[in-house]
Amino acid sequence: MAQKPSIPKGTRDFGPSEMARRNYIFSTIRSVFRLFGFRQIETPAMEQMASLMGKYGEEGDKLLFRIQNSGEKAAEAPEKGLRYDLTVPFARYVVQHREELQFPFRRYQIQPVWRADRPQKGRYREFYQCDVDIIGTDSLVSELELVQIVEEVYRRFGIRVSLHINNRKILAGIAEVIGAPDKMTDITVAIDKMDKIGAEKVNDELLERGLSREAMDRLQPILRLSGTNTEKLDAIAALLAGSETGMRGVEELREVFRLCAGHTQESDAFRIELDLTLARGLNYYTGAIFEVKALDAAMGSITGGGRYDNLTGIFGLPGVSGVGISFGADRIYDVLSDLGLFPEATADSTRLLFVTFGQEELRYALGWADMLRAKGINTEVYPEPAKMKKQMGYADANSIPFVAVVGGDEMQANTVMLKNMQTGEQHPVTQQQLIDTIS
Amino acid sequence: MAQKPSIPKGTRDFGPSEMARRNYIFSTIRSVFRLFGFRQIETPAMEQMASLMGKYGEEGDKLLFRIQNSGEKAAEAPEKGLRYDLTVPFARYVVQHREELQFPFRRYQIQPVWRADRPQKGRYREFYQCDVDIIGTDSLVSELELVQIVEEVYRRFGIRVSLHINNRKILAGIAEVIGAPDKMTDITVAIDKMDKIGAEKVNDELLERGLSREAMDRLQPILRLSGTNTEKLDAIAALLAGSETGMRGVEELREVFRLCAGHTQESDAFRIELDLTLARGLNYYTGAIFEVKALDAAMGSITGGGRYDNLTGIFGLPGVSGVGISFGADRIYDVLSDLGLFPEATADSTRLLFVTFGQEELRYALGWADMLRAKGINTEVYPEPAKMKKQMGYADANSIPFVAVVGGDEMQANTVMLKNMQTGEQHPVTQQQLIDTIS
Repeated sequence: MAQKPSIPKGTRDFGPSEMARRNYIFSTIRSVFRLFGFRQIETPAMEQMASLMGKYGEEGDKLLFRIQNSGEKAAEAPEKGLRYDLTVPFARYVVQHREELQFPFRRYQIQPVWRADRPQKGRYREFYQCDVDIIGTDSLVSELELVQIVEEVYRRFGIRVSLHINNRKILAGIAEVIGAPDKMTDITVAIDKMDKIGAEKVNDELLERGLSREAMDRLQPILRLSGTNTEKLDAIAALLAGSETGMRGVEELREVFRLCAGHTQESDAFRIELDLTLARGLNYYTGAIFEVKALDAAMGSITGGGRYDNLTGIFGLPGVSGVGISFGADRIYDVLSDLGLFPEATADSTRLLFVTFGQEELRYALGWADMLRAKGINTEVYPEPAKMKKQMGYADANSIPFVAVVGGDEMQANTVMLKNMQTGEQHPVTQQQLIDTIS
Repeated sequence: MAQKPSIPKGTRDFGPSEMARRNYIFSTIRSVFRLFGFRQIETPAMEQMASLMGKYGEEGDKLLFRIQNSGEKAAEAPEKGLRYDLTVPFARYVVQHREELQFPFRRYQIQPVWRADRPQKGRYREFYQCDVDIIGTDSLVSELELVQIVEEVYRRFGIRVSLHINNRKILAGIAEVIGAPDKMTDITVAIDKMDKIGAEKVNDELLERGLSREAMDRLQPILRLSGTNTEKLDAIAALLAGSETGMRGVEELREVFRLCAGHTQESDAFRIELDLTLARGLNYYTGAIFEVKALDAAMGSITGGGRYDNLTGIFGLPGVSGVGISFGADRIYDVLSDLGLFPEATADSTRLLFVTFGQEELRYALGWADMLRAKGINTEVYPEPAKMKKQMGYADANSIPFVAVVGGDEMQANTVMLKNMQTGEQHPVTQQQLIDTIS
């Protein structure tokens, strides 16, 4: 026999039980997006290389997959690449279709993305993102809606989370007041790692990146703020009094917290936390920054996003403000799995399998199956009269909860022998009894 | 302003209204697949080139998209390509995972595929296939189930169809009895075009492909058979009496027609037709061949498939019989569109938009929106107090059926002004009245 076939490293096959779980994740997220009036779009897997290059930094450029037509010569074929995320294609979409769109435009998009990252545990070369964005308004009601979506999605999953919020204008204000306005990016990149490497190493990195001792000293109390969100905001407001940008960030955050206080329900299962160390690497954020962590699993960020004032500028349409977040389906899968939170069965699964031991019984079962399917009940007929053990094993392996066995006696009585696979109980039933029991 | 961005030729963006229609197609097909107990799998967009090459003929090889990592040197990176269909990845999946699978394995798969075809009307470089297969049994009950799926899917769509059936063994038998057993492929490729180019040109092509005059003459009555399916089968049985393979094909078809007579409902909207000119190019078919055409639209095949006895043989696992069909989502979209059969609105759409004219009204509306969403009603709040005309235009453009206008009077009375966007009627309503009206 030839060597077993394989798939490219960093990619995955999803079998039926994984797909049932993944569909549970996607359909939960999708129905919450719809509850808030978001509309779905899809963009092609391939984008022009010109649309992708330079959008993800130098490192990102290296992780793009390029596509070539087998049949065409390199010269004929304009360069194409697989999409790296859903944000840049969304910006491209908005600019390309701006005449057809009604702003504010509320869109969601659930599609795979590809990155030529070195594969490792939990990091794949093909994975799904679930993005939701509102573009064309700077109303902070949009920030509220994203917070509400996070609350509702994780309430439905049963995952306890904390939602970390910061504002890029506050980070800019901090850089300003410590006397290092040109070092904003360096500061954010460094303090973004606070969680992972601790304050001391963050300070080392800041020095390396050229921050002065004096600026460093002024930064320390800000990194160590504590108390309630309001207390932290008050303290930061006092520190940032000299920075106009910083104070606008404070005001934005105050308003977002005010809206959240009125329209979300903080609890043990849902906390909102002002987190000044939250920076997120992406340079296009200009206002709110969000990140969500599961409280009962060590998983890092499972949802993140923020406001951008100039995302579509990269495609020639400046000054359109938007805000969005992205749910990471793979990490959510792992959290649900680790915490045992997946529902047992889904509406998708087969309810009943017919088991038969001869051609006549098989024909009889087919008629019953027609009747059940007409009632909307997902039904299978084992397609040949195989051994009892084999057919029952099939029901077991596929987690089919009910089996209807057909023998000569049952045919004569116009019944089937209905077996509950969980309890092992069985008794003969008529068509009506069968429907009543399994639906 | 920079040049408008674009997407690679032959690819498409799908906006919200197209997505709603596409989702209607996918969810209809998916729920019928589930009704018959099929389970979903997904495979990666990329396969090893070794898995793809040589599976689609020389022409197919040229249409494969190759993938290269930007960051890696050609030597490090094993060759990868985008999947060309769902059948070869399915065969690869079955062989790779055979130890985990329970046979017969019933799977469905709905994913995009990519072909570097020259783009033209109705032909794209990225398009979705919806495949359903049963592998690991040669029971003709599987053929019946696929026919039932076709019947049910198109009944739900409201598309009248004819299902054409043939059997590859009959084609082999024909080649045998006309004395040209080695010309089976040439004959099938040529008569496959009967529909498009007519009998005369088919005959020309057969001569070109080296069929003898004598064989040609013997072929003619077979190509011109008429009558009911049973009459055709009887006639062909008489002609093929000398061919064992041919007679097995006749017997298989007889049994499929017998099963269909008992378990499908032939009508004006669903016809089953024995079609000896149906060959389908794909060489891996060994038994039944199916093709579905819409009766009220000139669209060509909208669903097709057949039985293969050795699909997994290409990956080193011989002798596993299976049968499957594939629904073409894009062509079904065009047929539904041409015939005006898409449903008006879907459950996904926003039911109600709140329109406000000041910050206080906006806050008031947010509270009402919370309440409606808690009832599961898809609701939007226009995120800023813009001009009336702009907000109403937004509702119109997005086909939102109800608008709730909030002014000072409504706030005082604890109501909203509910407007039916279709009739133009409006009147003030309480929360309970609002729920009753729009849900």
